[in-house]
Amino acid sequence: MSTARLIYLPLGGAGEIGMNAYVYGYGPKGKERLILVDIGVTFPDMDSTPGVDLIFPDMRWLEENADRLEAIFITHAHEDHVGGVGHLWNKLKAPVYARAFTAYHARHKMNDHGAPEDEIHTVSAYPEVVKAGPFDVSFLPVSHSIPESGGLVIDSPAGRVVHTGDFKLDETPVVGEAFDPELWAKIAEPGVKALVCDSTNVFSLNEGRSESTVGPELKGLIQDSSGMVVATTFASNVARVQSLAQAGRAAGRSVCLLGRAMRRMIEASVKVGIIPDFPTTISVEDAREVPRENLMLIVTGSQGERRAASAQLARGKYLGLSMKEGDTFLFSSKTIPGNERGVISIINAYSEMGVDVVDDSSGRYHVSGHANRPELERAHDIFNPEMVIPMHGEHRHLRQHAKVAEAKGRASIVAVNGTMLDLTGSKPKVADYIETGRTYLDGSVKIGALDGVVRDRIRMALNGHIVVTLIVDDEPEPLGDPWVEIKGLTEMGRSGAALVDVLEEDLSQVVNRMNAKTLRDDEKLEDALRRTARKSASDELGRKPEVTVIVSRLS
Amino acid sequence: MSTARLIYLPLGGAGEIGMNAYVYGYGPKGKERLILVDIGVTFPDMDSTPGVDLIFPDMRWLEENADRLEAIFITHAHEDHVGGVGHLWNKLKAPVYARAFTAYHARHKMNDHGAPEDEIHTVSAYPEVVKAGPFDVSFLPVSHSIPESGGLVIDSPAGRVVHTGDFKLDETPVVGEAFDPELWAKIAEPGVKALVCDSTNVFSLNEGRSESTVGPELKGLIQDSSGMVVATTFASNVARVQSLAQAGRAAGRSVCLLGRAMRRMIEASVKVGIIPDFPTTISVEDAREVPRENLMLIVTGSQGERRAASAQLARGKYLGLSMKEGDTFLFSSKTIPGNERGVISIINAYSEMGVDVVDDSSGRYHVSGHANRPELERAHDIFNPEMVIPMHGEHRHLRQHAKVAEAKGRASIVAVNGTMLDLTGSKPKVADYIETGRTYLDGSVKIGALDGVVRDRIRMALNGHIVVTLIVDDEPEPLGDPWVEIKGLTEMGRSGAALVDVLEEDLSQVVNRMNAKTLRDDEKLEDALRRTARKSASDELGRKPEVTVIVSRLS
Repeated sequence: MSTARLIYLPLGGAGEIGMNAYVYGYGPKGKERLILVDIGVTFPDMDSTPGVDLIFPDMRWLEENADRLEAIFITHAHEDHVGGVGHLWNKLKAPVYARAFTAYHARHKMNDHGAPEDEIHTVSAYPEVVKAGPFDVSFLPVSHSIPESGGLVIDSPAGRVVHTGDFKLDETPVVGEAFDPELWAKIAEPGVKALVCDSTNVFSLNEGRSESTVGPELKGLIQDSSGMVVATTFASNVARVQSLAQAGRAAGRSVCLLGRAMRRMIEASVKVGIIPDFPTTISVEDAREVPRENLMLIVTGSQGERRAASAQLARGKYLGLSMKEGDTFLFSSKTIPGNERGVISIINAYSEMGVDVVDDSSGRYHVSGHANRPELERAHDIFNPEMVIPMHGEHRHLRQHAKVAEAKGRASIVAVNGTMLDLTGSKPKVADYIETGRTYLDGSVKIGALDGVVRDRIRMALNGHIVVTLIVDDEPEPLGDPWVEIKGLTEMGRSGAALVDVLEEDLSQVVNRMNAKTLRDDEKLEDALRRTARKSASDELGRKPEVTVIVSRLS
Repeated sequence: MSTARLIYLPLGGAGEIGMNAYVYGYGPKGKERLILVDIGVTFPDMDSTPGVDLIFPDMRWLEENADRLEAIFITHAHEDHVGGVGHLWNKLKAPVYARAFTAYHARHKMNDHGAPEDEIHTVSAYPEVVKAGPFDVSFLPVSHSIPESGGLVIDSPAGRVVHTGDFKLDETPVVGEAFDPELWAKIAEPGVKALVCDSTNVFSLNEGRSESTVGPELKGLIQDSSGMVVATTFASNVARVQSLAQAGRAAGRSVCLLGRAMRRMIEASVKVGIIPDFPTTISVEDAREVPRENLMLIVTGSQGERRAASAQLARGKYLGLSMKEGDTFLFSSKTIPGNERGVISIINAYSEMGVDVVDDSSGRYHVSGHANRPELERAHDIFNPEMVIPMHGEHRHLRQHAKVAEAKGRASIVAVNGTMLDLTGSKPKVADYIETGRTYLDGSVKIGALDGVVRDRIRMALNGHIVVTLIVDDEPEPLGDPWVEIKGLTEMGRSGAALVDVLEEDLSQVVNRMNAKTLRDDEKLEDALRRTARKSASDELGRKPEVTVIVSRLS
């Protein structure tokens, strides 16, 4: 007979920043009733995932245990927390709970992927409680860089878990509820078993700054600018977009929002009543008529995304608007590691136009949405949990966060994706390791990260591709010579002759020397042709291309 | 009759950081006698240049005018200044001048590529003069992050040009000559027409720090470390390697250098007499026997390079050495933009081992080799030139540097690669635009950046590759059905059937409906097959792969 236990299992987001998915369970071993917190995505890059459109956590374990899943909770509407709900819901089929702004976005995503939007349930903040099997769950308002972020207060028979979601401590957050130390203290009062806590900024040692410190800086900058002002930030940072718009209006400028994602975020905020007083904006059509010194654009593309408004403006005219000498472009954002090249190329394009680019290197025009180390320590102190479980971070963040907790005498552990923890006792214990990984959305098809598809793409990109075709009759005799096509390889090699000619010549010689046995054996024949092609290419090019051999047999 | 003029033409390095190559000329228009300053390379990345090994400036203009080229001067031994000399010399065939340390490396590079190493001439610093046609050229010692960096004092009948090379102002540089304000004042005395000036750190507003400030910080860190200490920096930063080794020895540790590039740099420094007193180091074999708390490794791979020692250690054992819990890994370096992902992945690998990673986020363990804005302004003031020509920078750096110069009333201009300036008058004038670009070393073959080879690789990486083969006899009738091979594409599409089956079925239908005219016309036939394959793949996968069609005709 097994006794009930409380488990925690990250399927994504622990050991990386992105694609958050955390499972909690309570019940007898192997029969725990489960809830899922967040169902996010992460984004591909050319280095490791060329051609991939979106990356999901591998949810197989949860899908196999979907009958035990009571509910899905989504902490906030960033893509790394909500982005997978439309794609993955059909294999989980549990009710989804979120606060209004997040629910609004989740419903859109369900719709986009043919999942039932009425499975998304809007929940108010604490003290409203959602009952999910053995769990009572409430949304605890936290400050972050998107409206209505929620931590979760998860009560189970084994005690209270506080799952912070992404958070900072901001007493003047511009949009949404301020950090409320009294409410937090009240949550902490009955005792907190585990604080499962955002680790993103654990290496930032200084006190974090409030969102409200940005507005005055923006006002000063815009007032001092003479030409058109164009500013970008994360589309979902509604508070920042509002601060930018207010600063523009305060400087006597008409403000125009450019970029679908940004307009959708503002619409959602207005619809759910988060920003009752968003400044008046004008349409693109009207913006074209406004003298540039009276105009401010707020645009998408803070990360240098090629199709976003910032990049389009950097390439020239966009929707009839263009930048020129004397204008100012502001990045009210930080560059996420990996996006540097794209951002820098936009800055240089603007430089060529004579546009003055202001970025956040001065630290005045952007603040982070995550708690720095001093705020993390303050959160630990307030909740005073039996254990701190670091999440939402790469390994280095989790490890450092665990050290910070342990330095104050709290139990902690580094648990990366797939590590099932038993939280029942006074210290976290590893209960099991679950196989996890990544799933790619590739065009409209889902593929496994280890299927070899992406590996082959990378190899073609690094090595080029040779296709060798040969027709063999049933004597068996080759009908004509081997034929070579190349892609991603130079036409002329070291010898000065055409590469395909050299290859075909070498392949012909090999084929002509072959005996009937080899010619009859597909595997041997293909192998011989492949090796010859690689060898010849290597001699000519100093590299070994990928080779596909196609033998057609006539009979 | 045309009068003589003094021209400046960057072929690389102006509008980018990397592959420096600057031409100066003096003489009648179109008949100027020329010198080349630096002949560097830049490095490929997966985003834009997958599979490429090295990138050179397109030197066609200079090759076509090689008969006018008097000499090549190399300012220092960084790859972006000297890296092209072995590859490109044979088409230029002019004598090469450099100071001893740089010449040592240049000779190796000539040897490696079958170019005559005796064309590399070692020159002493100012006041030694090299006569090169109408030019008298001297090497002015400057501080940088590699030994024996030289600015160039270039005297022509039209006046003196000072070409700074990469430089900072360091009065205590640890290795090599200190910044010598008196010598600089002496160079400035006859009047300087143009200061052609490094722009790398124009956005760094604080006073730069001396290399000598790093040593004490390193000593403190190493003394406070308990396990093995492993430190990385740029292999060519000999002063830093020496400071690291001294700090290790001062902390009572045996020091071992790991990584070929680093050992080669130290050997070269010892050989040319730059570092007479490099601390004693031990071999890898001996290092294996030293207790880890008494051992320090100095390793290559500060940029996360996959094959360097730092990455090898992050993957496990390397040459019998491995890191473990309680050890310290130090990045005494900054991460060059674009390399973040590789560096972060190493840090996380070390975190998994329990190794404490220290990077330069505190600003204590690394200083830049380039002049910050205050030092740039000081250099402007000392040389007090008629004009400042910003070089060695992306467009944003050049533009900002020109602004800094103009703010003090000096003439300046942004001249990117291919912009020929006439410096004869009191202000720089654009004289011409020369077509420039990039050449790729791809395996052992040089290819043009616009040849389409790399474009095809990127497309295969993003879209995958389908090969369609069809055999047609001379009726013309298809012999058998079209055959499909895929690479970099998932085996199963949206319909749940094998992708190749779906494609072959669709292609067969199209082929069966074809009339003899189409079957006879290679272009039409291939086009129809390609379009069908793309359409079917798009239906199945939601993406449009690259398609190669091979029609074999039997007759």
